[in-house]
Amino acid sequence: MGLFTLVESDMAAVDGVLVETLTRSNRLVAEVADYLLQAGGKRLRPTLVLLSSRFGPRPQARAVRLVAAAVEMIHMATLVHDDIIDEATVRRGQAAVRQRFGNSVAVLAGDYLFARAFQLLAETSEPAIVGTAADIVYVMCSGEIAQNLALFQEVGEEEYRRRIEEKTAYFLGASCALGALAAGADPERVAALREYGRHLGMAFQVVDDVLDWRADPGRLGKPVGGDIQGGVYTLPLLYALQRQPWQAQLRQWLSSRPIPVEAVRAVLEESGALDAAMRYARREADQAASLARGLPDLPERQALEELAHFVVERDH
Amino acid sequence: MGLFTLVESDMAAVDGVLVETLTRSNRLVAEVADYLLQAGGKRLRPTLVLLSSRFGPRPQARAVRLVAAAVEMIHMATLVHDDIIDEATVRRGQAAVRQRFGNSVAVLAGDYLFARAFQLLAETSEPAIVGTAADIVYVMCSGEIAQNLALFQEVGEEEYRRRIEEKTAYFLGASCALGALAAGADPERVAALREYGRHLGMAFQVVDDVLDWRADPGRLGKPVGGDIQGGVYTLPLLYALQRQPWQAQLRQWLSSRPIPVEAVRAVLEESGALDAAMRYARREADQAASLARGLPDLPERQALEELAHFVVERDH
Repeated sequence: MGLFTLVESDMAAVDGVLVETLTRSNRLVAEVADYLLQAGGKRLRPTLVLLSSRFGPRPQARAVRLVAAAVEMIHMATLVHDDIIDEATVRRGQAAVRQRFGNSVAVLAGDYLFARAFQLLAETSEPAIVGTAADIVYVMCSGEIAQNLALFQEVGEEEYRRRIEEKTAYFLGASCALGALAAGADPERVAALREYGRHLGMAFQVVDDVLDWRADPGRLGKPVGGDIQGGVYTLPLLYALQRQPWQAQLRQWLSSRPIPVEAVRAVLEESGALDAAMRYARREADQAASLARGLPDLPERQALEELAHFVVERDH
Repeated sequence: MGLFTLVESDMAAVDGVLVETLTRSNRLVAEVADYLLQAGGKRLRPTLVLLSSRFGPRPQARAVRLVAAAVEMIHMATLVHDDIIDEATVRRGQAAVRQRFGNSVAVLAGDYLFARAFQLLAETSEPAIVGTAADIVYVMCSGEIAQNLALFQEVGEEEYRRRIEEKTAYFLGASCALGALAAGADPERVAALREYGRHLGMAFQVVDDVLDWRADPGRLGKPVGGDIQGGVYTLPLLYALQRQPWQAQLRQWLSSRPIPVEAVRAVLEESGALDAAMRYARREADQAASLARGLPDLPERQALEELAHFVVERDH
């Protein structure tokens, strides 16, 4: 995320907290943590924490960096556990932790990351911060559980939106809220930033669901059509299933095993469903950008606005 | 734990929090939570929270009940995740969650329980409480990871003690500390109760490791010799491995697959290793009881002392 030079030095400090907290552990955890940190990732959540903190009176508070490191650890924990759930083999372009180290280590490494994150959060001495972070895990689990219950079932658009809100948008909104809280921002500012992050998260997840079909699998680090192969119905598919003359053929393909992913992909392009999903994502990103424009005129306001556009323009 | 009529009405309130928090969730979580709550369990950790709280100035504080419910949820979460790690089929006498609902649900249900626990802890508005609870999860994961790394390897006595301290004793000590903290006890009192719980936990785990060989599998809800079948070396085995003339034969059996559990069990009895482990547990329980006697003269002091004896006398 080279765009965000504004938070570069703070992000280096956050990375320092991450590396120190995770690699100074026992040997196995250090190995897993090192493996995860090497894989990189976009550091989107700590970026949101840091940018949002600039809208509070104390952006340099130690709590801000603790929270930024904690949200990334929570994110890493959920990735490791999701890989068990999805029986994933690849994540961020390398073998998934469960594939490399086995399910037992993946369960424990995720729990360890959660514990470490809550230790950092407790250090902030801010109950509202701990509560918000616990809410993140709670809401995400609820979304994952709902998704898990509905595998290989066609869900409605509303159900899809609720699910991505729980799985992704809530976390991004809460990351913004946490950054503002840690910097001592007032409740109105916290709420505005949370709303920005929520729309950003909706856009982000819909784009993810489009990239599942359109991205170069090498760059994305995941196979094409991985979602539906795992039984997860996403927006492009829901749109295509509403369209004639593709509907009947699509339903038939979706009920066969294995699902003919390449044929489905072609229909998602041809029917315009993928383009329609991208339009949906752009509307959410526009709402995020417009919320950003309501913030005080700081360089970070510009960065949040750019981030909204970046999220829909990325190719992996 | 009918012994502890002192905390009966408070425990009913704690059970109320547990049931309300866990079963008013989404359908799947409610089903899993209900399944876990039905299985019962000893409620040892909330009992320690409640008894310890009586040594602080505010034993009736709402924080005490929140913490009591939270430690039981953390315990349930670790049981559910441990079952994945151990590939357990039975827990508390019924099918393990992973066996009944699958690994995915078990991962998510555990994470959900952790999240709910930290939500309750955040409600106490006490950073020291959140930090102590995060430490519990951190230390337990460290112990589990260490154990996982050394499966089917003979460990030394010191390594065994460190491991059970991390896996069990720390949690029991921290439960006492949390009860005292939530009731506003001073640091010295908190430390004394923590030390009591730590010794109680050492006794508890060694007895568990003895019961793994001696208990009626029906009452225990687990197969005989389950630990070594899973590759975990416990104190009775370590003692027997120090004794002649059993050492050589035992080593040979332990390197064969499947391990002849019944033959190993006979040697553990014959060599006196199980009795020796019980003596070790009694020494730890005596230390706990003696620490309890140093507390103010309340009925709860008596209960803590009795608990120390109960832990070593139980048969499942």
